[in-house]
Amino acid sequence: MIDNPFYTPEFHGEYELVSVGALDLADGGSIPDCRLALATFGELNAAKDNAILVTTWYSGTHQIWRDVYIGAGHALDPERYFIVVVNQIGNGLSTSPHNADGANSGIAMSAFPRVRIEDDVVAQERLLREHFGIERLALVVGGSMGAQQTYEWAVRFPDKVRRAAPIAGTALNTPHDFLYTETLMEAITSDAGWKDGEYASHEDVADGLGRHARLWGVMGFSTEFWKQEAWRGLDFESQRAFLDGFLQPYFRAMDPNALLTMAWKWQRGDVTRLTGGDLGAALGRITAKTFVMPIDEDMFFPVRDCAAEQRLVPGSELRVVEDIGGHLGLFGTAPTYMPQIDRNVAELLATPA
Amino acid sequence: MIDNPFYTPEFHGEYELVSVGALDLADGGSIPDCRLALATFGELNAAKDNAILVTTWYSGTHQIWRDVYIGAGHALDPERYFIVVVNQIGNGLSTSPHNADGANSGIAMSAFPRVRIEDDVVAQERLLREHFGIERLALVVGGSMGAQQTYEWAVRFPDKVRRAAPIAGTALNTPHDFLYTETLMEAITSDAGWKDGEYASHEDVADGLGRHARLWGVMGFSTEFWKQEAWRGLDFESQRAFLDGFLQPYFRAMDPNALLTMAWKWQRGDVTRLTGGDLGAALGRITAKTFVMPIDEDMFFPVRDCAAEQRLVPGSELRVVEDIGGHLGLFGTAPTYMPQIDRNVAELLATPA
Repeated sequence: MIDNPFYTPEFHGEYELVSVGALDLADGGSIPDCRLALATFGELNAAKDNAILVTTWYSGTHQIWRDVYIGAGHALDPERYFIVVVNQIGNGLSTSPHNADGANSGIAMSAFPRVRIEDDVVAQERLLREHFGIERLALVVGGSMGAQQTYEWAVRFPDKVRRAAPIAGTALNTPHDFLYTETLMEAITSDAGWKDGEYASHEDVADGLGRHARLWGVMGFSTEFWKQEAWRGLDFESQRAFLDGFLQPYFRAMDPNALLTMAWKWQRGDVTRLTGGDLGAALGRITAKTFVMPIDEDMFFPVRDCAAEQRLVPGSELRVVEDIGGHLGLFGTAPTYMPQIDRNVAELLATPA
Repeated sequence: MIDNPFYTPEFHGEYELVSVGALDLADGGSIPDCRLALATFGELNAAKDNAILVTTWYSGTHQIWRDVYIGAGHALDPERYFIVVVNQIGNGLSTSPHNADGANSGIAMSAFPRVRIEDDVVAQERLLREHFGIERLALVVGGSMGAQQTYEWAVRFPDKVRRAAPIAGTALNTPHDFLYTETLMEAITSDAGWKDGEYASHEDVADGLGRHARLWGVMGFSTEFWKQEAWRGLDFESQRAFLDGFLQPYFRAMDPNALLTMAWKWQRGDVTRLTGGDLGAALGRITAKTFVMPIDEDMFFPVRDCAAEQRLVPGSELRVVEDIGGHLGLFGTAPTYMPQIDRNVAELLATPA
């Protein structure tokens, strides 16, 4: 158990920890006491048919959904919907290597087992059913690794997902993404302070986390983001100031093993495990009304990869989001981003399903 | 002086080392005895008007030009032209940190000075004039950092360049490229074996060179290269086998300080140093007939960046090369690549200038 101030209500605002009990994992091993950190917005109605599940991305938590995506005036409106944001396993808030204590003390740090996207979805389904009595979701929405979870939900539990909005992510991870993620992992594990996952503090891995942040600088935005100096919109005075003042502290605050757990999971996102490797068969299972929403300038979930999957989802639509922020357009910092998300998600929610 | 078997005629075939004497550098300092490694093909005619200069890219040498681009049946035909390929300073064959001996022993290894694109071009102009008596070039052509040198030639010596073909590179390096190059440098310098540039053997930096190679896996090709498993065309059986059998040994054979010298130079490629920062004025100096040739799938010299510069070059044309190999399409491994290069370069050479 490592105390890291980033993974606290002081940084993240209020959230609940709800145990779904022991979770046997797809790749072997289990989490004895799988605790999911979640934040809810709005009220579940009597029919329990106004629930929306939000899944989280690599390095992300419920925080950015609360601050950017959810609220009055947004499609994700707590006045109308009961919105549950569930932090993915290993993200530092839900059960993760650095916080595995009590019943989970046997899987702390380097002993933490491999977790797959499907493990998250199985745990989330159990949480929603057992804790909230929710059997069917009005919408599942998530970006990046959240899109992986969204697809997994729609393929694994087609009867439980009425609508799906995977943003900037794929159902089957691509070979290029696998390589990119590998460089992220290697940036961390090449730091001697990582000590095969048995560091005493995330600060011992500051150099590795810094290199990891720099890779996000190259791939996370777009060539045009840098050329147009879009960071000026975030009140930085230079590229260097933006890197040092934004990306570096963002990632250096995080837990190295948490990032590695998520990265391994990201690399292996794959809905075809349900259909013997057949992507068409997997995506053909989806009955949810689905809007596939890639970001036009995304360097590692390019539109064409998302569009190829979209064509395999019955009745789905491709809704391309324009943002020179690229993949990290997901942060919603461009004033033109959220209106596009809201317009599409609102239209999806208004579509009978 | 480090013996590295990669930088020898056994690996590279025959080449000459020609000294251009002392070279004072734009960023201060000088190379006491600047030796340029060069390979020539064909014969200089009596009028000395059939000379073509080829410049080299990051990590590249004359070898790939000899093996892929030059020869009977290619636009760069030694039957018609006198083709001089000059290895850039710091590339391991020309004067470089690891081979600085004799008069250059004071600038060995970590003492090696900063070299800019313009230093290469100044040295090349002196070489061609003093050693070969060449005052005017029928063509300057190069890819990537070779394109940077090509632009610098056309801007700095407009009367000496009749035609120019910058392939997959820019006249002014982009902010995104700067960041990518920084991650390449950091992959090397983060290896404890690098020892601030004073390693005893490049093999001491094998881990860093390996990480450096992996970054090329992410950015050097394209998402589509990996998705379509284009490495199968190179007779590899898996993505892993391709990475381990091609990219890793390619970069691990090289000298770390040589790569760092070139990377620093790449980051600062900038023809506007001649015009007080005015890109339009710099490119407006060009009188060479110029074909700007970006590769459509290049992830860090995207077509739009090259096209924006092309529009500033009087009378120039944009000739986009299609290759899912992305930037490393430059290796010419796709059977569709060289026919496009040859078609465009042949047309350029046939254009009166």
